[in-house]
Amino acid sequence: MGGVRIEHDFLGEMVIPADIYYGIQTYRALENFKISGISISTLTYFIKGLACVKKAAALANTQLGVLEKNKCEAICKACDEILAGKLHDQFPLDVFQGGAGTSCNMNANEVIANRALEIMGYKKGQYEYCHPNNDVNCSQSTNDAYPTALRIALYAQLTTFIDDLNYLRTAFEKKARELNDVIKMGRTQLQDAVPMTLGMEFSAFADTVYEDMQRIGEARNLIAEINMGATAIGTGINSPLGYAELVTRYLRDLTGIPVTKASNMVEATSDTGAYVQLSGVLKRCATKISKICNDLRLLSSGPRCGFNEINLPPRQPGSSIMPGKVNPVMPEVMNQICYDIIGKDITVTLAAEAGQLQLNVMEPVIAYSLFSGISRLGAGCHSLVDYCINGITANRERCRDLVYNSIGIVTALNPYLGYETSASLAKEALQSNRSIFDVVFERNLLSKEQIEQILQPENMLYPRKTFSDNKD
Amino acid sequence: MGGVRIEHDFLGEMVIPADIYYGIQTYRALENFKISGISISTLTYFIKGLACVKKAAALANTQLGVLEKNKCEAICKACDEILAGKLHDQFPLDVFQGGAGTSCNMNANEVIANRALEIMGYKKGQYEYCHPNNDVNCSQSTNDAYPTALRIALYAQLTTFIDDLNYLRTAFEKKARELNDVIKMGRTQLQDAVPMTLGMEFSAFADTVYEDMQRIGEARNLIAEINMGATAIGTGINSPLGYAELVTRYLRDLTGIPVTKASNMVEATSDTGAYVQLSGVLKRCATKISKICNDLRLLSSGPRCGFNEINLPPRQPGSSIMPGKVNPVMPEVMNQICYDIIGKDITVTLAAEAGQLQLNVMEPVIAYSLFSGISRLGAGCHSLVDYCINGITANRERCRDLVYNSIGIVTALNPYLGYETSASLAKEALQSNRSIFDVVFERNLLSKEQIEQILQPENMLYPRKTFSDNKD
Amino acid sequence: MGGVRIEHDFLGEMVIPADIYYGIQTYRALENFKISGISISTLTYFIKGLACVKKAAALANTQLGVLEKNKCEAICKACDEILAGKLHDQFPLDVFQGGAGTSCNMNANEVIANRALEIMGYKKGQYEYCHPNNDVNCSQSTNDAYPTALRIALYAQLTTFIDDLNYLRTAFEKKARELNDVIKMGRTQLQDAVPMTLGMEFSAFADTVYEDMQRIGEARNLIAEINMGATAIGTGINSPLGYAELVTRYLRDLTGIPVTKASNMVEATSDTGAYVQLSGVLKRCATKISKICNDLRLLSSGPRCGFNEINLPPRQPGSSIMPGKVNPVMPEVMNQICYDIIGKDITVTLAAEAGQLQLNVMEPVIAYSLFSGISRLGAGCHSLVDYCINGITANRERCRDLVYNSIGIVTALNPYLGYETSASLAKEALQSNRSIFDVVFERNLLSKEQIEQILQPENMLYPRKTFSDNKD
Amino acid sequence: MGGVRIEHDFLGEMVIPADIYYGIQTYRALENFKISGISISTLTYFIKGLACVKKAAALANTQLGVLEKNKCEAICKACDEILAGKLHDQFPLDVFQGGAGTSCNMNANEVIANRALEIMGYKKGQYEYCHPNNDVNCSQSTNDAYPTALRIALYAQLTTFIDDLNYLRTAFEKKARELNDVIKMGRTQLQDAVPMTLGMEFSAFADTVYEDMQRIGEARNLIAEINMGATAIGTGINSPLGYAELVTRYLRDLTGIPVTKASNMVEATSDTGAYVQLSGVLKRCATKISKICNDLRLLSSGPRCGFNEINLPPRQPGSSIMPGKVNPVMPEVMNQICYDIIGKDITVTLAAEAGQLQLNVMEPVIAYSLFSGISRLGAGCHSLVDYCINGITANRERCRDLVYNSIGIVTALNPYLGYETSASLAKEALQSNRSIFDVVFERNLLSKEQIEQILQPENMLYPRKTFSDNKD
Repeated sequence: MGGVRIEHDFLGEMVIPADIYYGIQTYRALENFKISGISISTLTYFIKGLACVKKAAALANTQLGVLEKNKCEAICKACDEILAGKLHDQFPLDVFQGGAGTSCNMNANEVIANRALEIMGYKKGQYEYCHPNNDVNCSQSTNDAYPTALRIALYAQLTTFIDDLNYLRTAFEKKARELNDVIKMGRTQLQDAVPMTLGMEFSAFADTVYEDMQRIGEARNLIAEINMGATAIGTGINSPLGYAELVTRYLRDLTGIPVTKASNMVEATSDTGAYVQLSGVLKRCATKISKICNDLRLLSSGPRCGFNEINLPPRQPGSSIMPGKVNPVMPEVMNQICYDIIGKDITVTLAAEAGQLQLNVMEPVIAYSLFSGISRLGAGCHSLVDYCINGITANRERCRDLVYNSIGIVTALNPYLGYETSASLAKEALQSNRSIFDVVFERNLLSKEQIEQILQPENMLYPRKTFSDNKD
Repeated sequence: MGGVRIEHDFLGEMVIPADIYYGIQTYRALENFKISGISISTLTYFIKGLACVKKAAALANTQLGVLEKNKCEAICKACDEILAGKLHDQFPLDVFQGGAGTSCNMNANEVIANRALEIMGYKKGQYEYCHPNNDVNCSQSTNDAYPTALRIALYAQLTTFIDDLNYLRTAFEKKARELNDVIKMGRTQLQDAVPMTLGMEFSAFADTVYEDMQRIGEARNLIAEINMGATAIGTGINSPLGYAELVTRYLRDLTGIPVTKASNMVEATSDTGAYVQLSGVLKRCATKISKICNDLRLLSSGPRCGFNEINLPPRQPGSSIMPGKVNPVMPEVMNQICYDIIGKDITVTLAAEAGQLQLNVMEPVIAYSLFSGISRLGAGCHSLVDYCINGITANRERCRDLVYNSIGIVTALNPYLGYETSASLAKEALQSNRSIFDVVFERNLLSKEQIEQILQPENMLYPRKTFSDNKD
Repeated sequence: MGGVRIEHDFLGEMVIPADIYYGIQTYRALENFKISGISISTLTYFIKGLACVKKAAALANTQLGVLEKNKCEAICKACDEILAGKLHDQFPLDVFQGGAGTSCNMNANEVIANRALEIMGYKKGQYEYCHPNNDVNCSQSTNDAYPTALRIALYAQLTTFIDDLNYLRTAFEKKARELNDVIKMGRTQLQDAVPMTLGMEFSAFADTVYEDMQRIGEARNLIAEINMGATAIGTGINSPLGYAELVTRYLRDLTGIPVTKASNMVEATSDTGAYVQLSGVLKRCATKISKICNDLRLLSSGPRCGFNEINLPPRQPGSSIMPGKVNPVMPEVMNQICYDIIGKDITVTLAAEAGQLQLNVMEPVIAYSLFSGISRLGAGCHSLVDYCINGITANRERCRDLVYNSIGIVTALNPYLGYETSASLAKEALQSNRSIFDVVFERNLLSKEQIEQILQPENMLYPRKTFSDNKD
Repeated sequence: MGGVRIEHDFLGEMVIPADIYYGIQTYRALENFKISGISISTLTYFIKGLACVKKAAALANTQLGVLEKNKCEAICKACDEILAGKLHDQFPLDVFQGGAGTSCNMNANEVIANRALEIMGYKKGQYEYCHPNNDVNCSQSTNDAYPTALRIALYAQLTTFIDDLNYLRTAFEKKARELNDVIKMGRTQLQDAVPMTLGMEFSAFADTVYEDMQRIGEARNLIAEINMGATAIGTGINSPLGYAELVTRYLRDLTGIPVTKASNMVEATSDTGAYVQLSGVLKRCATKISKICNDLRLLSSGPRCGFNEINLPPRQPGSSIMPGKVNPVMPEVMNQICYDIIGKDITVTLAAEAGQLQLNVMEPVIAYSLFSGISRLGAGCHSLVDYCINGITANRERCRDLVYNSIGIVTALNPYLGYETSASLAKEALQSNRSIFDVVFERNLLSKEQIEQILQPENMLYPRKTFSDNKD
């Protein structure tokens, strides 16, 4: 403690505090990139992804005879410590950085090399016994190690995220069952349409989320294609023959993630298609969840001057000036998370489009945008369920009254009276401020029994049993 | 008629129908760019902008002794014809094109040269007497002529567009006056807040549009900075000394637009800042108008199961299945125009960011996005006014009933009873399904006269006259 | 010819020219929506999609006993005419429209009803014999008929588009084989990296496009889920039991497209997830193709002051002022198409997010954005191949010289000399303006044979055969 | 210390640690919003903005007789402490939150009330002596207090940001002067064009940034329009007459910022136009800076296989595998910051468009997006200057050689030989791999002196002195 060590690279020398595991290259990057104040150390999945990559590489390198066994063992132990949650504070770099991830990769190389040195009984910085580049980074380039770590991290994070979505979906399903018998007006274009149930409405929310889960799962699978062994540009320069396949297999075993080696490694090294795809699917997901939150806010608008069909549980006083006001704060925060995601999709798109020739140098901002977006949306799902959806109640009477007083139920008369007669009934009801029941009854077009049967809201929730039977 | 002429450029020869005014370079571009089926000939403002540029250049060139007077006269006459609306069908190129506008510029050069030749008594294609490059394009490059024409066109189009916005604003103002006395509930976060009037609401719409008019005006002024005389990259190569100032002055006189010469011509030649600015302001405008349309749709939701405070005039049957349904189709189409504009802002941004070194090659897609966006939004303003806003009516009783039954009016009791007592009154009214009047009266906290005065909606529309007076 | 007929709806009457097939509702919409000047009649796929929907509905309705057989036959014949390319000019509506597609659906209903009337021997407008709403729209709502037609159209258009992409991919593959032996420098972050071949580079382009074809194919399959039978809001009101399944089967047979009935029809009726997904994948595709075009422009930069590794075929003179200049106009136009697509993705996203409750009213702008985007990108693929990629040639000597003079080949010395020694060699070569060959030879670190073997570019294109063998 | 206090609101009670300054409403929000892990306490400008608002309101309220003087004094002292940097850790809320800022406003109200209580000699929580709502929030609503604090904060942050931009601009200007005499080829569409100087190129960068400074300044001024006194929805309910003007004047005095009262307070309360405008201008700024960074990376591409006209100072080793490689990491990180900004513009746009009726509930995500974007872009300016621009050097000989060997200089022959002859010279030079000098000399079209004078690069940097003189 308290001492220092001297490190150098081809740009010069630096004094490093002795207790720091990272080295000169991380130091340089720390100085270069002081942008957002958000550090890599907060990206747990990613740091573990780097550790997996370095461990798998060490194992493959040793098996192929290009890394000494004792170095491999020390490197693996260091990686295991990181996987166990240690040393994450040794990844201090800003999430915004130039260099296509080289600084992150070197950060991992330096931390692992120094920890491995300690495990082997040396001091930090005695790189002649275990070198960040020659040994920890052996047969690797940032250009394969970094994106592979990123993909492993995203895969793991997405697996959790699918659970988060499922938590949301399940809550909607439960609520749908609970409100299954609440008849209410459906609305299209914000105009009264025809009857449905709150159960149907919440069931639609559940199924929407379910579909997003499927799409996220597919995007996750595309992320699992990696380019380990590509080294600098995909040609595999400086890697031993067979290494790419071997390190991929080790990674699969270590992570339990079905990673596969890209078939065209040159293509894979500059390709960001899987990130853009994932970002696009996240955007889809955000778009749909935002729509649901908009609906929840509409349906609970009021309490006296809005739709007022459902009540969201009160979570906090809603106004500093209006006493007793309660606002739909949980859907509101979710909307904002969704807008953040949709914005990030543009960031990812611009970064992907900016890739030039054999590499996409903009991957760090892609990584940060995806990691933070997924994390926020996942957190939002839990908050929305726990603090809002689970506590939703229906205003059953209000819902039913709206149906009975509506004009839209005239639709059910179509098959009996035709579109034009029905339209004239609707017009008259609206202009005279009366109910459809009254108007159709007055005109003597159908018997009272027929009217009551046809206009019974419950009978409008499904296709007609048989038309001809009804007609006669 | 029916004959042909042979033209050549440094890539080879082509047979051109004799009645066609454009030449080999336009022909090549026609073949190269078959993308959208939308042609430059639909961009009236732009074609006229090109004519202005060519005429001004001819005048300046002749004054500086680098263009013969007879050529100048013929060129000016040809330009005048285009300005009078002729020959626009001779601009057949797709709005999507590579070449940074060179094809458009050469299209203008060729059409004007050939028409000038005819005016001078020659045949089309006898370029030895008036050459598209040497004469019509004299002292110019696409890189100054094209953006200058674009800017003149945008300036003119924006001037019309500001009128379109004013048409919208005026309609809102008129409606605001008409509905000035309709008291209604204001809503924040879709929850009932405190009273206001429909007049206030429509007046806010008017003022929002007014602010956008100011911003569009400012963006228009930035567009008026041009780089004529910059020629290829801003250095003015091949232009005579003094030409840049002179041609700018001619352009100002010809167009009546206060164009100014950019101070840094190299910067101006690659700069697309004014387009990005304009696109951003259009996006702002779209965002605000879309918000207004959302509000119109909310306020007219119903007729029986929604807010139902206002009625939009029925424009067309709203459903093929639901008789009598009428939808807010005019705000709906405006929303979609706005989404188109917001998307185009991203297109413009990407195109601007892609500029490299001394020129932005992506200007054609910037031009098309701006021209079509402005045109659609302007058309939308007129349709919205004529077919929707002018015919809006209020449901006065409904509006007033909602206020009296609301909880939100409890806010006015704050200064008399404090936030916490008021909150408990609100809570009780909501839970017991009673009015604030009843609850506050029952608790005996204020005299009947005080209650009625304080809770009179009209008294809640403005700041309190004097607090101390009221309090005593 | 020349005569008129009177039509009415619940808003009033209109005089319609006798030779016009559409009716009063289309007329109203024509007046309401004068926005872009681009008409539905240009959307061939979509008009045919509508015809398929109406035909399938007629067949299902007749089989279920709710539509008379003679009407069905006439409706089917009218639809067949539309499928054969007739009557498309009878779809004059602006692509921008409110009403969630009701106007398009009614346009189809009216045209088909009137054509069916003629086929049955009646006059246009004699709707008592075949009614647009009661018969042609029988058991349908705009809310299922319109999106189903849209999805069928998109599916068909995407099938063509995948062919367009394949045309692009095949061209890259062919070029890759042609240039397979051209050794050149790879570049990462625009800095010289390590050797590769032009074949590898073009093969990467081909594989990128191939991956996009897969993604587009998946997105297309999601589009095939339809909601026919949902009618107004997904409950199937006014449709006979069994109709949804039956009409879906008829549609599958008629179109050859594997359409399936959505499992949750309420969800499906408001859902726009498949469009957002498709738009996101198109954006991915655009992002990747734009990157490729950026690369083509970089690699052909010059001819004297740029990378100058490849030559794009000259398509048109590149400058109105700089003689002999030739620009990469084909990649340039493709970039702009891609920016258009990326912008449209935001439009689609906004429109999707704006869906409220039981319907997304913004589908028309989604439809237009997708149709026009796909069409433009497809056209771009063909132009790019025919006018650019097929004619690309390599500057072989230039490519090879750059490799030999590069510093980056020092990378191959890593496994022999270690990272740090190699770095010092690189630094020295750069500073002394010499080749790596000279510097490493001078330092006497390896034998001349070793140097030549290791630094032979051909030996750097793949992983090392066996490291241990090499080392000894 | 260590004790607790009980607080309540109309939803119930909570136990609060005695040393905590915030109260029950902040606590509830803390529980509700656990999204990003980024807290309001990091937004220094904003917390100070809130303190200014509360102080100005207290002063105005006291002057108008609606707040006791002793409360006012204590509130002002508490605010002064916050302005001095204290208590910022008492603002723990997540930057993502529902409630339109109510939680932030109540957080400020609670912290200030409790600190004021201490100053007055009471204990925290004894709200009967100074109440968060009745006193600290007196005559305010979140809906005016929150956006006003936000605008004050943005104004102050933008003032700093303009300095940051000026730092960047000045560095470019200095470098432009330094490299003023370095002649080089200009490039349009990545193809060689005509000569210019590096000084011109860097001067263009400087002027681009200067223009952005102007635009940011204008956007900042629009932000200075506030709605204090609007209270809940702009009607000023519960505020004393004259308060709005008075509190605005106090705010102007306290902050030194030229804030003005909005003319239409209802409009101003829901309006987010100024944020959208600002975000659009930031996007413009990002677009332009990103373009500059792209140029810096292009111009420094190489060192052996690229443009290699300038050298960026090496900041860190560029590769974990390629020894000696140095990458343009500073422009790269700036590009990524810019993509972040551009994405955030979409977030802001979506949030603005989502505003409904009398308030925009999505302001918190607008606030966070703007604050973090401006901060990152400002930081990026400093890093780019300090670590990149200041150390840029030119490769003078390389630049000059490229000019002499270029084809593009043929442009200067246009006025003497015409476009077509010049084009044939260019074509011949390119095909025969010779210089323009040689080809034109060989053809005997001009005398050697003429050629040398015309083709002297220095003579191509400006308009021609007098054309007629030259010609003779």
